[in-house]
Amino acid sequence: MGVVVNLEDGKRGPASIDRLIGLTKDDMARVNELILSKAGSDVELIPELARHLISSGGKRLRPMVTLAAAQMFGYAGEGHVKLATSVEFMHTATLLHDDVVDESDMRRGKKTARMIWGNQASVLVGDFLLGQAFRMMVDVGSLDALDVLSTAAAIIAEGEVMQLDVAKNLETTEDEYLAVIRAKTAALFSAAAEVGPIIAQASRNDRAALRSFGTNLGLAFQLVDDALDYGGSTSDLGKNVGDDFREGKVTLPVILAYRRGSEEERQFWKRAIEDNEADEAALEKAIGLMNRHGAIGDTIGRARHFGEIARDALAPLKNTPQKAALFDVIDFCISRVS
Amino acid sequence: MGVVVNLEDGKRGPASIDRLIGLTKDDMARVNELILSKAGSDVELIPELARHLISSGGKRLRPMVTLAAAQMFGYAGEGHVKLATSVEFMHTATLLHDDVVDESDMRRGKKTARMIWGNQASVLVGDFLLGQAFRMMVDVGSLDALDVLSTAAAIIAEGEVMQLDVAKNLETTEDEYLAVIRAKTAALFSAAAEVGPIIAQASRNDRAALRSFGTNLGLAFQLVDDALDYGGSTSDLGKNVGDDFREGKVTLPVILAYRRGSEEERQFWKRAIEDNEADEAALEKAIGLMNRHGAIGDTIGRARHFGEIARDALAPLKNTPQKAALFDVIDFCISRVS
Repeated sequence: MGVVVNLEDGKRGPASIDRLIGLTKDDMARVNELILSKAGSDVELIPELARHLISSGGKRLRPMVTLAAAQMFGYAGEGHVKLATSVEFMHTATLLHDDVVDESDMRRGKKTARMIWGNQASVLVGDFLLGQAFRMMVDVGSLDALDVLSTAAAIIAEGEVMQLDVAKNLETTEDEYLAVIRAKTAALFSAAAEVGPIIAQASRNDRAALRSFGTNLGLAFQLVDDALDYGGSTSDLGKNVGDDFREGKVTLPVILAYRRGSEEERQFWKRAIEDNEADEAALEKAIGLMNRHGAIGDTIGRARHFGEIARDALAPLKNTPQKAALFDVIDFCISRVS
Repeated sequence: MGVVVNLEDGKRGPASIDRLIGLTKDDMARVNELILSKAGSDVELIPELARHLISSGGKRLRPMVTLAAAQMFGYAGEGHVKLATSVEFMHTATLLHDDVVDESDMRRGKKTARMIWGNQASVLVGDFLLGQAFRMMVDVGSLDALDVLSTAAAIIAEGEVMQLDVAKNLETTEDEYLAVIRAKTAALFSAAAEVGPIIAQASRNDRAALRSFGTNLGLAFQLVDDALDYGGSTSDLGKNVGDDFREGKVTLPVILAYRRGSEEERQFWKRAIEDNEADEAALEKAIGLMNRHGAIGDTIGRARHFGEIARDALAPLKNTPQKAALFDVIDFCISRVS
């Protein structure tokens, strides 16, 4: 069932974010402390549920991007730790609400919060984390950072609503799908990156560079995620092959295979995605059709395209260890499908 | 089934918020415009669902309080309209999420959004409105107002989580219940009132006065609402008598009747609230028991107590039409049960 993808840059060896982890290690220790303290509440259920999410082993890519982007412009204060924590809280709140909306049972190989504590608690603890995220941003006191992050919050929600429409609609065009992931995934990466130069009082150009880096990294990240759902290694993602398929989610590999397929194949996709006939045999057939039409490889190709834009966005900036580390993040995202 | 309550100040005649409406009329016209424009989105479902909420005929008490509180201290700018709209959006987002959490079918005599567009859309459009609320606050640019409103957002969510515990727990004490409504209802009234003096750059004492007014008005408002659910006129509220009872919600009238009741009566309450045996006959019996123990009258008494605190909070302030209008709001809230 594996998908073999030839990466042009396969000779570089497996990409890693070790440099990013190294550069942000001390700051991330403080982010992790802040996460625990700001997820605290006298209302027991809140820290209990938050602990579950915190221990669920995400890579914390977004807050690391914020920290590196602030360091990159010589930021010497304390605000970046709070902003990075806010970004992670916004992400966590989105996951909580997403799992309710998608009726998901598992995330990263663990039961979702809603399966343990119910949809009610997931909605409300998500709201609480979002409130805490805004409090921390306000505490930092940068109206520009607040502007970027609050705009992202509205756009993310807008993207999630758009996805309700797209979800089971096989006629979705690639452009429409890109608009959805630009809002639901890329907007937060973009904001996470941009608040770095903002808090460091860097120039408008620097802000624009980091914003563009974040947006395109986010698009690449989501497309790779979509491809991984139909093959590639699962060790990295903690996601099972076929999760999106079983949930009837229309993602780019599906869109491409559907649009390129025969009438008969389209009937198959309709049964699988629209009528929920998505068992293991159907999944195997789906992957076969995707490979026949190059749908997975081309999804990865699109991801690589956005990765290159992200790279060029940073190109004019001074070479710093942080810049190198952010380049690594792009390679790392793409290499997850290698 | 009606409940007769003798109000000590019954001689004043029916209270009205006409003065408040008159004072805030022009500003509210702009709030209403802003609501429509900020609930706009290219994602069709969002304005569609938002229009449903907007036309559902709430009194918009909270934004009117914000406007009057800003006018009261001579505020002459434009920011109060945005803050008032933010407050209303926060309230609307809470209603959307509440209806999902409570699985409510009706609100103010209309089908809830979740019954028409589903839980998914209700969660996500709530998130969108919250994001838009924060964007407007950021736009106003007052970090103090942002601080107060973002703190309120976190506290409201915390209160909603607390309520999950309280919901069907008849052993809840009055203090525990007050802590819940202080968070879930009073925090927003408090913030709505306090941002007025904040934006008008009034003194710390003025801020504290309005904050205290809002908190206690919110407590009174919620307790009257609780009492209305077991009697009083429904014409004003668009809420049917017995809604809380049928949902098995523990509110103050239930807490008082349960604690004052015999062992046999407590068994009845357990069947009704915990085991959902809450049919019309049970509702009639519940109201009978409440009247026997003075539970509804005393709930209104508690509301009046908080109303008095709200009044004293404003007492030292200069007499202005706005102050008189805010006094009216207290009387109006209490008089809904007269």
